Amino acid sequence: MSNPVLVEVTRGNLVESRHRGTVIAVDGDGKTLFALGDTDGAVFPRSACKAMQALPLVESGAADAYGFGDKALALACSSHSGESEHVELATEMLSAAGRDVSALECGAHWSFYQKNLIAQARTLEKPSALHNNCSGKHAGFICACCHSGTAVEGYAGYDHPIQQEIRGIMESLTGGLLTRDNCGVDGCSIPTYAVPMKGLAHGFARMATGVGLAAERARASKRLIEACMAEPFYVAGTDRTCTRLMKAAPGRVFAKTGAEGVFCAVIPEKGIGIAVKCEDGTTRAAESMVAATLARFFAEDPEVKAALMAQANHSMSNWNGIHVGDVRVTEAFAS
Amino acid sequence: MSNPVLVEVTRGNLVESRHRGTVIAVDGDGKTLFALGDTDGAVFPRSACKAMQALPLVESGAADAYGFGDKALALACSSHSGESEHVELATEMLSAAGRDVSALECGAHWSFYQKNLIAQARTLEKPSALHNNCSGKHAGFICACCHSGTAVEGYAGYDHPIQQEIRGIMESLTGGLLTRDNCGVDGCSIPTYAVPMKGLAHGFARMATGVGLAAERARASKRLIEACMAEPFYVAGTDRTCTRLMKAAPGRVFAKTGAEGVFCAVIPEKGIGIAVKCEDGTTRAAESMVAATLARFFAEDPEVKAALMAQANHSMSNWNGIHVGDVRVTEAFAS
Repeated sequence: MSNPVLVEVTRGNLVESRHRGTVIAVDGDGKTLFALGDTDGAVFPRSACKAMQALPLVESGAADAYGFGDKALALACSSHSGESEHVELATEMLSAAGRDVSALECGAHWSFYQKNLIAQARTLEKPSALHNNCSGKHAGFICACCHSGTAVEGYAGYDHPIQQEIRGIMESLTGGLLTRDNCGVDGCSIPTYAVPMKGLAHGFARMATGVGLAAERARASKRLIEACMAEPFYVAGTDRTCTRLMKAAPGRVFAKTGAEGVFCAVIPEKGIGIAVKCEDGTTRAAESMVAATLARFFAEDPEVKAALMAQANHSMSNWNGIHVGDVRVTEAFAS
Repeated sequence: MSNPVLVEVTRGNLVESRHRGTVIAVDGDGKTLFALGDTDGAVFPRSACKAMQALPLVESGAADAYGFGDKALALACSSHSGESEHVELATEMLSAAGRDVSALECGAHWSFYQKNLIAQARTLEKPSALHNNCSGKHAGFICACCHSGTAVEGYAGYDHPIQQEIRGIMESLTGGLLTRDNCGVDGCSIPTYAVPMKGLAHGFARMATGVGLAAERARASKRLIEACMAEPFYVAGTDRTCTRLMKAAPGRVFAKTGAEGVFCAVIPEKGIGIAVKCEDGTTRAAESMVAATLARFFAEDPEVKAALMAQANHSMSNWNGIHVGDVRVTEAFAS
């Protein structure tokens, strides 16, 4: 069975490109509230599960020991744009644990976002690992290791204690069995595990509700999600969709992108976890899919719903500012 | 009916993303030699049909009058990367007709390619219309107008004589009826017309063979395609797929990308025209699809076939240079 077309990109009066995908929203008990496509399939959550990967930073006591506030916790869950605020905060987090850029194992890259890349090109010879979109997450790993007395070196490896701990956390949250067989290497060199879509959404619903979690994990989950919602710029950056979605419904929506068309989201007040995968890995489509999925749970709040749908359906202009077409979700979301 | 999955992107042992698409190869008589997916569907060729749009430049006599060689003709068919050679040549073309950057109606943008963007950011306050990937095509329009005494201003508009002429050329090459109903506005503001996939491929096969074309059009078509094959850097740029495909089989393959996952190609010695559309508009997949389609017509030449298949199937590394997965065409191409 083919996954349904969930997003269309138009030009003139015609549809130019079509994106298929899978969407699921579940509650803390694992009850499916909304689903489109093959939600039994497994997906690499990539960076969309960074809030899960940040749990050891909080649960270990490292975040408190190093005095991390909402901004640092948000950055630990982020795929940031490499803006100066992100780079400075990642530096401060490492410094709190007595470390610096040399401890980072994520590799270096220029910002993915043109405006930031231009600014970087004008001020940097080349980017460092601090500019890597994952530097906040990696700083969180390093801080967790330092606080607990675990050797930092090799922290990105499959067998390192911090990755073992994360593997256990993700198994418990998603219900998936995570082994080398369903493990890939992520862009920043840490393991990423393919998990069933429903399990991924349920994991976030558990984080949102605390259902079935030990008290410490429930508290840490709530704290991370609230930190991200409080400081959405530190989860992504200027003009980024994660940041815009969280600003569209302040304190009411958590949303996090992952490479290859993944998005995870949480509506804490409703105890809902959401997972989205665009079959072809395209970010523009995953953004529309998650926005439309979030919107359907705000029917009673037309302003929030409209703000979210404005992220789902939007126009495209060319280099002369002429309207050339639209990105829009399909009728599949009307079901 | 769904289009088949033609390209898979793997991570670890698993498929992470899937791209569906449509591929067709036809000969000058319009006989289908190979097809996958719904080839009756219409597609906006976008920049993949620039060689068709460059015909007035040659047919009008402007190219000869202004002394344009292979490089200028290749640039007229290009989506270039905004490298200094491209910008300088576009400037020279305009200058030959007594015009300059102020005549261009394509809008300005930074290079789409990171290495070039970094170089531009370090040397430019902001890019001009000369840096627009379409500046060579637009310079060609302007030269054709100047030579034939047509007013240049408004040359990008649907009703301007040069666009009317191109519409007629594309109708005759593709067999499609082109009207405002199937017209969209392209990134560079000129009209782009949705045409059936088979007609698009047949149009390029006609250009390759001259079958059914007036002698003047057959000559102009041959000259443009040979210019692109002779100067592939001017059709795209450093590390670009169009350039690499044409370098993989020097003088034997013409290939041109278009936005939203389109590719057109020609194998002149075999009289074959090819059109490719990735359903979801992703360039990486269209590149693999066209490379694999070209490769199947070089079975008798294992080196060329292997060079083309190396463009179709390739590995992906992360920021630390670790192999994380592969882009590969599916079994659909084995049919």
